[in-house]
Amino acid sequence: MAELLMVGSVAYDSVETPHGKVTQALGGAASYAGVAASFLAPARIVGVVGEDFEQAHLDFFTSRGLDLAGLQRVPGQTFHWGGRYEQNMNVRTTLFTHLNVFEDFNPVLPERYRSSDYVLLANIHPALQLQVLDQMTSPKFVALDTMNLWIDIARDTLGEVMRRVQMLLVNDEEARQLTGLEDNLAAAEGLLELGPEVVIVKKGEHGAMMLTRDWSFLLPGYPVTTVQDPTGCGDCFAGGLLGYLAAADRTAEATLRTAMAYGTTIASFNVEAFSLDRLRTLDRAQIDQRCRALRALTAFEV
Amino acid sequence: MAELLMVGSVAYDSVETPHGKVTQALGGAASYAGVAASFLAPARIVGVVGEDFEQAHLDFFTSRGLDLAGLQRVPGQTFHWGGRYEQNMNVRTTLFTHLNVFEDFNPVLPERYRSSDYVLLANIHPALQLQVLDQMTSPKFVALDTMNLWIDIARDTLGEVMRRVQMLLVNDEEARQLTGLEDNLAAAEGLLELGPEVVIVKKGEHGAMMLTRDWSFLLPGYPVTTVQDPTGCGDCFAGGLLGYLAAADRTAEATLRTAMAYGTTIASFNVEAFSLDRLRTLDRAQIDQRCRALRALTAFEV
Repeated sequence: MAELLMVGSVAYDSVETPHGKVTQALGGAASYAGVAASFLAPARIVGVVGEDFEQAHLDFFTSRGLDLAGLQRVPGQTFHWGGRYEQNMNVRTTLFTHLNVFEDFNPVLPERYRSSDYVLLANIHPALQLQVLDQMTSPKFVALDTMNLWIDIARDTLGEVMRRVQMLLVNDEEARQLTGLEDNLAAAEGLLELGPEVVIVKKGEHGAMMLTRDWSFLLPGYPVTTVQDPTGCGDCFAGGLLGYLAAADRTAEATLRTAMAYGTTIASFNVEAFSLDRLRTLDRAQIDQRCRALRALTAFEV
Repeated sequence: MAELLMVGSVAYDSVETPHGKVTQALGGAASYAGVAASFLAPARIVGVVGEDFEQAHLDFFTSRGLDLAGLQRVPGQTFHWGGRYEQNMNVRTTLFTHLNVFEDFNPVLPERYRSSDYVLLANIHPALQLQVLDQMTSPKFVALDTMNLWIDIARDTLGEVMRRVQMLLVNDEEARQLTGLEDNLAAAEGLLELGPEVVIVKKGEHGAMMLTRDWSFLLPGYPVTTVQDPTGCGDCFAGGLLGYLAAADRTAEATLRTAMAYGTTIASFNVEAFSLDRLRTLDRAQIDQRCRALRALTAFEV
């Protein structure tokens, strides 16, 4: 098993969906991705929290085998995001974004992190993503997540990161925004010109598409009747995927395909409860079972 | 090979998309479905056209092996639909619907059609769909397509049709409308309570889901870079699916799955040109090849 590093937000989320609401619940890309990965491979976390961050959350991370040496605890309040999902939960409104201690986040990798093999650069400012890459010796496989904000205001820096990573994860809209191409498939193919060998275009409940120059892989989402809260789905997807790759320590086609199926599966569990709550009771056997169910759901002969 | 019957509109379409426009081009559910099926099994067509319907279109149907004994030609103009697709081609506006001769359509089955084994009741008034079923001896497998209009204004009659068919084809929105359930999966499952053994929920470019009480099958759309005109996609899907079933003369799980893959594949060709134009040059080898490509696209090990 190879060493896995994840850089991103550890946060509080206040979220309202048609099925309920939570206030100041555990959230953040690195939290979701790290815990999702932990079912497959232990992950090292780089992030920052404030003095208000509860010990119980740190204990939960530790219980999942996460390495918290890179999780700084500094004076001030933890990053706090507030959002609301409409009846159609594909529509999300951000109510507030209090960056708090995240505003001055300066990712510093503990010495032993620097040689990590697999890296997830979750959604933070591309300049910080570069700063992380500069501290690493020679990672085997780096995956990059981003968002429309950075495409708008830090496009050049983001371009530099893209040229240094193996995998890019975006959604349909970001793919169009990055390439200027309206057609989803053309946009996805256009992303391969920007640097990464592997491009993943996420389509929410409709699943995801993985593209390389040589082959592509298309997987629907696992259908869930009890979607409580979609927050963190993309992070669980990325975390599960990277966890699978790190555990296998391979990035050949078959491994990448199965890794995406694992990411899809863990994300499908995550939506069944608010915050990271479903991940608290999840176990590897449940994940393996649903991943096999996903294969059965999508299999056909020709 | 079993006998396949299709009932529905044969029409003229005037369509505008971001990629061009056509005026009074060949269209209609039975046209698309019949020609799509013809690559797998010859189909008998029941429909009506006006005096203005071009002989060249009839010749095209005949060249595809379609049986036109049930296609009435009556005084008046052929059904003419006009629509426009927006930049996001999932958004379609109907500009006009001239029912013309379709308004008094009274489906009468030629004697030899009555013993057909496989039937597609394409989208027409449910009372007419019942009228067709009443003329049949004992079909093995009837598939029903419908639309929001009939759910609104002829719900009870539609309910009666649903109780007499084996398969129901709807889109996400129609599934919600028929069941009153907001969640896509719950709505799809709810449709199984209304009569059909097999429910298919179509999701446009995102593919389709097939559900039964015992198993489900989920297939993404085949990704196409050159979507010119989505008109008739759902009809090609249904036609290809029924054509495969009729050719196999089986409706076991594996056959139904492969049939949906064939429907998906033929629909993906259809969007590559306006009207039925792509189907004019298509051949079985191209279909088989893309269907295998679709399997390769979606396959993974676990």
